[in-house]
Amino acid sequence: MSKFYGIGTGPGDSSLVTVKAVNTLKKLDVLFAPQPKEGGESLALSIVKEYILPKTEIKQRHFPMNFNDEERINAWNKIAKSIENEVKSGKNVGFITLGDPMLYSTYVYILELLRGKVEIETIPGISAFSNIASSQNFPLVMDREALVILPCTADEEKIDFTLKNYNSIVLMKVYKNFKEIIKKLKKYDLIKYAILVSNSSQDREIVYHDLENIREDQISYFSTILINKENYHNK
Amino acid sequence: MSKFYGIGTGPGDSSLVTVKAVNTLKKLDVLFAPQPKEGGESLALSIVKEYILPKTEIKQRHFPMNFNDEERINAWNKIAKSIENEVKSGKNVGFITLGDPMLYSTYVYILELLRGKVEIETIPGISAFSNIASSQNFPLVMDREALVILPCTADEEKIDFTLKNYNSIVLMKVYKNFKEIIKKLKKYDLIKYAILVSNSSQDREIVYHDLENIREDQISYFSTILINKENYHNK
Repeated sequence: MSKFYGIGTGPGDSSLVTVKAVNTLKKLDVLFAPQPKEGGESLALSIVKEYILPKTEIKQRHFPMNFNDEERINAWNKIAKSIENEVKSGKNVGFITLGDPMLYSTYVYILELLRGKVEIETIPGISAFSNIASSQNFPLVMDREALVILPCTADEEKIDFTLKNYNSIVLMKVYKNFKEIIKKLKKYDLIKYAILVSNSSQDREIVYHDLENIREDQISYFSTILINKENYHNK
Repeated sequence: MSKFYGIGTGPGDSSLVTVKAVNTLKKLDVLFAPQPKEGGESLALSIVKEYILPKTEIKQRHFPMNFNDEERINAWNKIAKSIENEVKSGKNVGFITLGDPMLYSTYVYILELLRGKVEIETIPGISAFSNIASSQNFPLVMDREALVILPCTADEEKIDFTLKNYNSIVLMKVYKNFKEIIKKLKKYDLIKYAILVSNSSQDREIVYHDLENIREDQISYFSTILINKENYHNK
């Protein structure tokens, strides 16, 4: 039976895709890939390109990021409708998304538009934060500890609340208000337990250990801060 | 140059291993696999067995879970020392761990014992919670939302605090005090937004949507609750 597959590509390195994702990519008739803008290059597509067979038709589409706008909702509806039609005509249709499909991915909007209309299978991916932790040998949580994943676009109150009350924190979208975040990390005495990594596992990856001396204009869109106050080495 | 590799196996299904993990397993001279008890079957080993070449020597070892005990620390030190010796003799040595190595894995103890002594490369894995979310088409977080991952072995105060203040929560180790947790999910009006999955991606996987009617003795060691109060479908 034909299906719609949502596939997590991981953070950038093609080898961080799962075997299941590779097997799924190979059975697709059609693959939808998100483009940053009309005519732009799809990062997700560049990650999985080596696994796609010639029989698969690739459709790059621009997916507007903001969902709360009529024009954009119409664009999403149109793409969802065309996926629905392809699946109903007997084709296996894929949609690739960076990182993990269930964590901060616009794939969720397509999923919700197609739910109940076609069979849907979602295949997880390695999140940037998980790859940063492993590639930096930076343990995130052990035993009874909690981990909070927080976008820096959250309410300021929520950011302060989290920094104050938890020891292990992943901060996403740090480019938005970088200076303010660094100030807060100093205020809550977290800065010495933090690392920042841009473009994890990509050619342009940069690792920063001294967060106080990063210039704001150095911070790329794909930057993540990991914080862990625990020191497992002395336990 | 020879290295020590920590490799995440994902939650259970062999196809949820990354291509990088497969490639790394194929170059190992020695692979250490954790056993639940002396002579027991290693779940992590059963996941990756199909990727291991005949040249790789497999060493199953019992790794005591509690680290705060002299006898156990000695056991870990002994295993770390033997890994160190193998790597220094020119061998590529691997250690496999369920899920993701940087999230609640005893691999971290071995990592800390070997840090600075041999070259270490850690390869991330799909966490059970991430696979549950994808396989159940259960989005965890979007946009400006925070996600908290919390073991139910945490202080009760921390559990209440998290359930009260966050909308998206992953509860791990729910078998420990299952009845109490269900009571709390009712108290904070979260139970209708929750699912529970045992043994995700394994043959014995069970999915529960009606958490109030699960008997405590049905709950296996590998059970996770996902909670998300947001409803993306109507946005």
